[in-house]
Amino acid sequence: MTAAEHLYTIQLLGMGEDVRILDQVHLPHALEFRDLKTFEEAAEAIAVMRVRGAPLIGATAASGMALAARVDASDEALASAAQVLRDTRPTAVNLGWALDRSMKCMLEVPVEDRVKVAYQEAASVIREDAMANQAIGQHGLNLVKQLSEVKEGKPVNILTHCNAGWLATTHLGTATAPIYLAHREGIPVHVWVDETRPRSQGAALTAWELHREGVPCSVIADNAGGLLIQRGEVDMVITGADRVAANGDVCNKIGTYLKALAAAAAEVPFCVAVPTSTIDADMPGGDDIPIEERDDQEVLTATGLAEDGSVQTVRTAAEGVPGCNPAFDITPAELVTVLVTECGLIKPGHAGDLVSSE
Amino acid sequence: MTAAEHLYTIQLLGMGEDVRILDQVHLPHALEFRDLKTFEEAAEAIAVMRVRGAPLIGATAASGMALAARVDASDEALASAAQVLRDTRPTAVNLGWALDRSMKCMLEVPVEDRVKVAYQEAASVIREDAMANQAIGQHGLNLVKQLSEVKEGKPVNILTHCNAGWLATTHLGTATAPIYLAHREGIPVHVWVDETRPRSQGAALTAWELHREGVPCSVIADNAGGLLIQRGEVDMVITGADRVAANGDVCNKIGTYLKALAAAAAEVPFCVAVPTSTIDADMPGGDDIPIEERDDQEVLTATGLAEDGSVQTVRTAAEGVPGCNPAFDITPAELVTVLVTECGLIKPGHAGDLVSSE
Repeated sequence: MTAAEHLYTIQLLGMGEDVRILDQVHLPHALEFRDLKTFEEAAEAIAVMRVRGAPLIGATAASGMALAARVDASDEALASAAQVLRDTRPTAVNLGWALDRSMKCMLEVPVEDRVKVAYQEAASVIREDAMANQAIGQHGLNLVKQLSEVKEGKPVNILTHCNAGWLATTHLGTATAPIYLAHREGIPVHVWVDETRPRSQGAALTAWELHREGVPCSVIADNAGGLLIQRGEVDMVITGADRVAANGDVCNKIGTYLKALAAAAAEVPFCVAVPTSTIDADMPGGDDIPIEERDDQEVLTATGLAEDGSVQTVRTAAEGVPGCNPAFDITPAELVTVLVTECGLIKPGHAGDLVSSE
Repeated sequence: MTAAEHLYTIQLLGMGEDVRILDQVHLPHALEFRDLKTFEEAAEAIAVMRVRGAPLIGATAASGMALAARVDASDEALASAAQVLRDTRPTAVNLGWALDRSMKCMLEVPVEDRVKVAYQEAASVIREDAMANQAIGQHGLNLVKQLSEVKEGKPVNILTHCNAGWLATTHLGTATAPIYLAHREGIPVHVWVDETRPRSQGAALTAWELHREGVPCSVIADNAGGLLIQRGEVDMVITGADRVAANGDVCNKIGTYLKALAAAAAEVPFCVAVPTSTIDADMPGGDDIPIEERDDQEVLTATGLAEDGSVQTVRTAAEGVPGCNPAFDITPAELVTVLVTECGLIKPGHAGDLVSSE
């Protein structure tokens, strides 16, 4: 009985019906659901991060196209809806990938069949991501088992950054999938959860997920991983990614690169768990991936539960000082030990081989 | 007219008088001063970080010994007071260094002369640190000037971590001293200020200092420095240190090591500004430096100014999840380009040559 089996990050409520999302904005302090009725609401949910994580953004975008089609399935209306959804966030490749899939299916059929096709395609995106999660988990589990044998049953210490958990996908997560499967098999693991400022998705979301499932974990400042890796207190690092370039460069949440450097310096495996939908065959290397710059208020403030039980945002920085808030960074392929995909473990330099360029 | 000239982090209010500190606990939201009357109050001020930063901890410890002497200057009472002060925080070497200086002076004279000697010695520690700040600033300024010439007058982008500013010392700071002197000379600089979770000394203290003096600066998440360095948006990194081992390994605020790795990968100078009082000749390498572990509540929460104007601590992490909170890390000497000391720029491998082992 697990969290992943009981809660859904996204659900199509039926053919032609609304789309229900787990609204992550107030997690971990409040668990709320929200029914999306229009593509504009789907776009808003992506933009303000009610849903986040590359795979879930893709699933929400495909679902948003279904909501668009049930209002107006003309070529023009669909193209316009796709553009609105595409403009919500620039970095995750799954967003464009899911929109392109949905559009392609719909344009192949007459207007009157498009609602059905769009809902079917959204369901496929959701189902395929869940299957990819499961396969990623199985492949990653083998790595965890190997480390567990080396450690003779002592807990395998796994460091993760941001949230590439089930909240970021439609099933077990990407980076967390091997962790959940190992835990369910009784392999002792302990997870170092990077807080992941400025939005604290690690402390708020990953820690919530893991704790809810009973996986031992500790929240650490983003600054702490270097020391822990240096001291031998980390056996592997595993993260997700928002986009992987054809050469294997990994674009992921800001701060990932720093952990990759520390892992390389200590010869600790640095693994990136991604569905192949996150690999962008059209992007030769990481340098060209657009990096989203977010509002500097995120870095000047912190949001959490106050003593009176209300969720409050407090200003942590000195008054009047500006901030700078890039949301992703690039980890060069040579720092990545392995990509854990639904097709198996592959060397990052072979990322482009798994997917075909258009 | 500068902040450094108008506010003092610590002041002896006169021979045999109380010791006034700038109480940093509520900075940047409230500027408060506090008069310490006993060595126990001095110990408390160090322990709860009303004063912090290796040089200022040393100055406060020496002042605490003066407060102890005015109550009871017997050998036993002084030894007992020194022990209480020594036990407040484990990492900064200046603490023990200042206590040893004070004890040595007092034990050389009759009991009746010890109050005078202790106040004189505390004044010397404060004055010498101020002079060291000035000299560090001059030596570091030469580095900034060189970079400014290479950049043909475009702003020199300097990244710093935590607070090694005037709030951490008795005058211009260590890492900030070259920045303040460059700014006063009209050399354009811009400072990337690492937030420095979990206590946010960068966002709260360094940003406050720099902004108050009019130095252009931007607060960034601790996660962001890697990307900025990679992109060529950082011309030099400069930090302070809590202790430098004889081989040049640098112990500084947790997270420093990660920035050193990123700087080395991009061949950006990584400079550590320290008075020689921070070099520990008795510590051969960084591995043996005790790393303070602090309360995990620091990493599970954030403190700042709420909308109603009150200072509040909010829980950012999921409920029930533990944290782990090591406060310092070790940057190996080979990642450090240069130590900026009051004696000049020296290679980290020669750190031990500047000070004599006991």
